[in-house]
Amino acid sequence: MAELKRYGVDDFANMNKAFRTNLVNSLSGFKSANLVGTKNHAGVSNLAIITSVVHLGANPAMLGMVIRPATVPRHSLQNILKTEAFTINHICKNYYKQGHQTSARYTNEESEFEAVGLTEEYTTHCFAPYVKEAKIKIGLELLEVLPIKFNNTNFVVGRIVEVFYPENCIAKDGFLDLEKAGTVAVSGLDSYHSTERLSRLGYAKPYQELKEIDTDFIHELMHSK
Amino acid sequence: MAELKRYGVDDFANMNKAFRTNLVNSLSGFKSANLVGTKNHAGVSNLAIITSVVHLGANPAMLGMVIRPATVPRHSLQNILKTEAFTINHICKNYYKQGHQTSARYTNEESEFEAVGLTEEYTTHCFAPYVKEAKIKIGLELLEVLPIKFNNTNFVVGRIVEVFYPENCIAKDGFLDLEKAGTVAVSGLDSYHSTERLSRLGYAKPYQELKEIDTDFIHELMHSK
Repeated sequence: MAELKRYGVDDFANMNKAFRTNLVNSLSGFKSANLVGTKNHAGVSNLAIITSVVHLGANPAMLGMVIRPATVPRHSLQNILKTEAFTINHICKNYYKQGHQTSARYTNEESEFEAVGLTEEYTTHCFAPYVKEAKIKIGLELLEVLPIKFNNTNFVVGRIVEVFYPENCIAKDGFLDLEKAGTVAVSGLDSYHSTERLSRLGYAKPYQELKEIDTDFIHELMHSK
Repeated sequence: MAELKRYGVDDFANMNKAFRTNLVNSLSGFKSANLVGTKNHAGVSNLAIITSVVHLGANPAMLGMVIRPATVPRHSLQNILKTEAFTINHICKNYYKQGHQTSARYTNEESEFEAVGLTEEYTTHCFAPYVKEAKIKIGLELLEVLPIKFNNTNFVVGRIVEVFYPENCIAKDGFLDLEKAGTVAVSGLDSYHSTERLSRLGYAKPYQELKEIDTDFIHELMHSK
């Protein structure tokens, strides 16, 4: 590792707090950029940026996310525990600054929707609010909350109830083109990125050459008929 | 949501399996692209692509990741449980195809390192192998494995023991420039992306305008002196 620099356990312990926070937040790689919508029984909606949403399984369709108790999304966790409902809304290029602004410490009586200028939207299948401006959005019901002992964070597990997506972004094989939908990626605490596809790679088999996949969009296939 | 299409619970239940797998894998947003290195006590190394690594906390510095038992990384989980050590290596543009190839079903006696043409590298602080070709790599010790009841997946929690990074990628404030290091992002099951920074946004405060952050690299600051 001659050409690389190293930080060990002692370095982390002695680091300036802000430096360590920026560094460790950079280490997982690129992150998903989502706004999690919830509402309490008093009718106050909440919107929080969460960069830890991960895929858990396709059948049943499940997503998970980390919520840290000491940080702003605590209202989200309270609402999720009480109402068992939340939405996940992809952050798009055209409102990523508003998405970031939801991380400001608004009070429990303020709705981040109003404060940052995004619009609540509801369906009959989910108690929690969607972000009207979002192109890809998912309604979920709570399955379980797993406490992570070592640092009092929680891993929230949800089951997908419904999904909304732009018709021109879905491929014949089910792949959803996030790039076409304008979804952004995050790195570190505060860096937002658009993406450019390198390629889609086929199912890997031992000792066989990988093939690149062409993406046929249903919308285009229908129009070409 | 007039302009968007919808899938509900019934649609998911009746979907073609491959279509559903591609779709649900697309829903979390962009994912981190990492190779997880492990080794068993017989000395056989293992390398698995994992797209679910997430940040858990900066102090202590912790990362988490989802491992599905029925899929290829099961050797990884066995090794992690037995040796309590693993490495996380960012997948770079120049070897993302080899990274994808690690998902092929090699036997327990074969090392994916050799099979896909990547190089093992060791330090005195970690039993598990690093990927020599990786620019950003992290050694971890196992803290706990949280079983997710509903679909037999596991959430693996690790504590960071050491980190290696390119000197020219670290900023004065601790931010690590993944784009500069060539780290890629993943979407869906098989789509690889390079990124382009939109901006870094400052700490958000209620009712104050967001500022963009300039990234000052330590390396450049030192050279300009």
